[in-house]
Amino acid sequence: MAGIAVLGFGVVGSGVVEVIRKGQESINRKAGENIELRHILDIRDFSGHPEKRLITGNPDVIFNDPGVNIVVETIGGIGPAYELTKRALLSGRHVVSSNKELVATHGTELLNTARQNNVHYMFEASVGGGIPIIKPLSECLAANEITSVTGILNGTTNYILTCMAREGKDFDAALNDARREGYAEANPEADIEGMDSCRKIAILSSIAYGGHVDYRNIPTEGISHISYEDLKIADMMNYRVKLIALSRKIDGKVFARVCPAMLESGHPLANVEDVFNAILVSGDAIGDVMFYGRGAGKLPTASAVVGDIIDVARSMDRSRMNIWNQDGSQSMADPNSVDTRYFVRVKVRSSEEARRLISEKFGELEFYEFPDFPDQLMFKTVISTDGFLTDRISELRGTGSISDIVTTLRILEQ
Amino acid sequence: MAGIAVLGFGVVGSGVVEVIRKGQESINRKAGENIELRHILDIRDFSGHPEKRLITGNPDVIFNDPGVNIVVETIGGIGPAYELTKRALLSGRHVVSSNKELVATHGTELLNTARQNNVHYMFEASVGGGIPIIKPLSECLAANEITSVTGILNGTTNYILTCMAREGKDFDAALNDARREGYAEANPEADIEGMDSCRKIAILSSIAYGGHVDYRNIPTEGISHISYEDLKIADMMNYRVKLIALSRKIDGKVFARVCPAMLESGHPLANVEDVFNAILVSGDAIGDVMFYGRGAGKLPTASAVVGDIIDVARSMDRSRMNIWNQDGSQSMADPNSVDTRYFVRVKVRSSEEARRLISEKFGELEFYEFPDFPDQLMFKTVISTDGFLTDRISELRGTGSISDIVTTLRILEQ
Repeated sequence: MAGIAVLGFGVVGSGVVEVIRKGQESINRKAGENIELRHILDIRDFSGHPEKRLITGNPDVIFNDPGVNIVVETIGGIGPAYELTKRALLSGRHVVSSNKELVATHGTELLNTARQNNVHYMFEASVGGGIPIIKPLSECLAANEITSVTGILNGTTNYILTCMAREGKDFDAALNDARREGYAEANPEADIEGMDSCRKIAILSSIAYGGHVDYRNIPTEGISHISYEDLKIADMMNYRVKLIALSRKIDGKVFARVCPAMLESGHPLANVEDVFNAILVSGDAIGDVMFYGRGAGKLPTASAVVGDIIDVARSMDRSRMNIWNQDGSQSMADPNSVDTRYFVRVKVRSSEEARRLISEKFGELEFYEFPDFPDQLMFKTVISTDGFLTDRISELRGTGSISDIVTTLRILEQ
Repeated sequence: MAGIAVLGFGVVGSGVVEVIRKGQESINRKAGENIELRHILDIRDFSGHPEKRLITGNPDVIFNDPGVNIVVETIGGIGPAYELTKRALLSGRHVVSSNKELVATHGTELLNTARQNNVHYMFEASVGGGIPIIKPLSECLAANEITSVTGILNGTTNYILTCMAREGKDFDAALNDARREGYAEANPEADIEGMDSCRKIAILSSIAYGGHVDYRNIPTEGISHISYEDLKIADMMNYRVKLIALSRKIDGKVFARVCPAMLESGHPLANVEDVFNAILVSGDAIGDVMFYGRGAGKLPTASAVVGDIIDVARSMDRSRMNIWNQDGSQSMADPNSVDTRYFVRVKVRSSEEARRLISEKFGELEFYEFPDFPDQLMFKTVISTDGFLTDRISELRGTGSISDIVTTLRILEQ
């Protein structure tokens, strides 16, 4: 028998209960155990709710019940989620989590605690909602040396960018649409400024390269400064703009970044639209493999949590694969040492003079001009570092022929 | 210690040895065991080969070695592969396989034998080459009731169709290209006539719906009758033509089919090109999720085999999830009871008269005509069964206004 306590009866937590109730028989069969929901921890009032009798506001009820051996943490954030996860692991209970913030922040410590107590700490649902990615990356692709992970990991921002491009809306209007559709939270900052993607790429990178990648070391930029004009011009050049989270192994060090980037329309990630997520993994044997699906949402995320519960129930007596090495951090490459090609868009007073000046700073380039944007000049730089770009751009700024640097965007090469 | 014997030192078998040799240290760490290559079974002459000392032509050498606990079957086909797999399982050894033909034909029996002998029989590499699909489908998505599986499961045919569409070649010329690139075998019949896809969708369907689906019950049609004209006209109508393997659960029964089909260009599978494979899985909680990558090739396939080896090494003492129910076959829906929309292309003597006649048989329809194909008329039928289509088509054939039925193709709706 596997006795379950669900901590947090919000969107994901209630989804977990719903998925278990609906699929109880098939889930028991697959787990080879009876999966019994024993407690739900939530301090809010659920009088009249069909699960009322399971709901408690007191964690001691759970920790005093020897019948509970799997704790599901769907509280989110750090604070109580951290305390309760730690307590559960120390008490010899397995923990299944959907909490990317907690995994990204304290994952190494919690995996360590789990190992010391011979229990599992699993978090398939923390990245990509219901898309299977943690287990495929850590188990199915285990024979590979992973060389890069590139993803669209946040549904809110992808919805906003899709909506802007498709309907010609500006950022704020598209954000309002996302709110109305339930795809953006009241306070969407963590999504639109890239923090959510940053935590997720930190988790994937820790697994991919086998050592802890601290999300605080990942340069992160959001999409709030992206305009409809940026998307329209990108489209005219056969590019799409996406919020990309990526990491690469370079000379034994890990380079990671979250930023909006231009992708050629044929890039496998270019056509990932709306709230969908996709993760492209490259390995030395496998080449490229991509995982695609709904990266959020109550039932997709809950189904990933329940997949982990089934897995734990089937292997309660077995120690877990070292999902990443808990002994040391991954050493990180200096982000400024990594080369990218940039797209630059400037407002010009004199196109000819601006072309001459830009070529002087950047070398021979191809320029783009569009009748719809008569006073603008666009170009793609040679492959260069952030530092090189920043220096050259500052030299261009305020020269007579160039009145404004409108946009600089990284180009993600295939 | 995990002692490995590789049966069959062909493309995949030699890839397995290469992947293990290259990643030995990291593979040992992930497996939590030393993975030791002890024997390679192959009757051919490998004198001078660096692995020469491991190669034997005598299976008894392997079965008399108590140090071998994992047997890797990369022979392919039925015959010896079946005998040796059975013998390995009966002798209490785990078996990892890349052999779709054997799994599709004797999978149920071999899983049963494995269970009775308390060992694992694993075959991640049998479908989708290196793309993780068997484990994600059977474990990560275990909380879902799977409603459909739709895939491009054969790289050879996808390369041929891509080559035809892109370069304006006819089938035979594209097949020759595929041969030259090493993407088609000397005898490509199993690929181009859809049998390879058929076996793979049978395996995926058995896992997805939890009961054995016999590949011999799956209507299968290949691509050798597809012409460049078909692809060109599809393209003008914003469709792509792909060899699709699909299955669906309908009223408790499984419907499966392999056939070329037209997909709207926005369909997630429409832009899967060259030798790439992709598998779209729909579940009640997850919605749609897609897996994409190289569906064949030495190292991708070998990496999937080695992923299974690591998994087995980590869980040698644990019984495996019932990958599908070995007690009964899945009951199959009558393929003729399942509705599809069809695209039909006919040669006409009189367009006006043909339109009248077709509308009489099929009801109100939209017709398509293209200046490049002046004597042809195209239309999409209402959603109907094979039987309905066949009857109506036979009524059209040989009427005065219609001189030929050039093409009928199923349309895969999103």
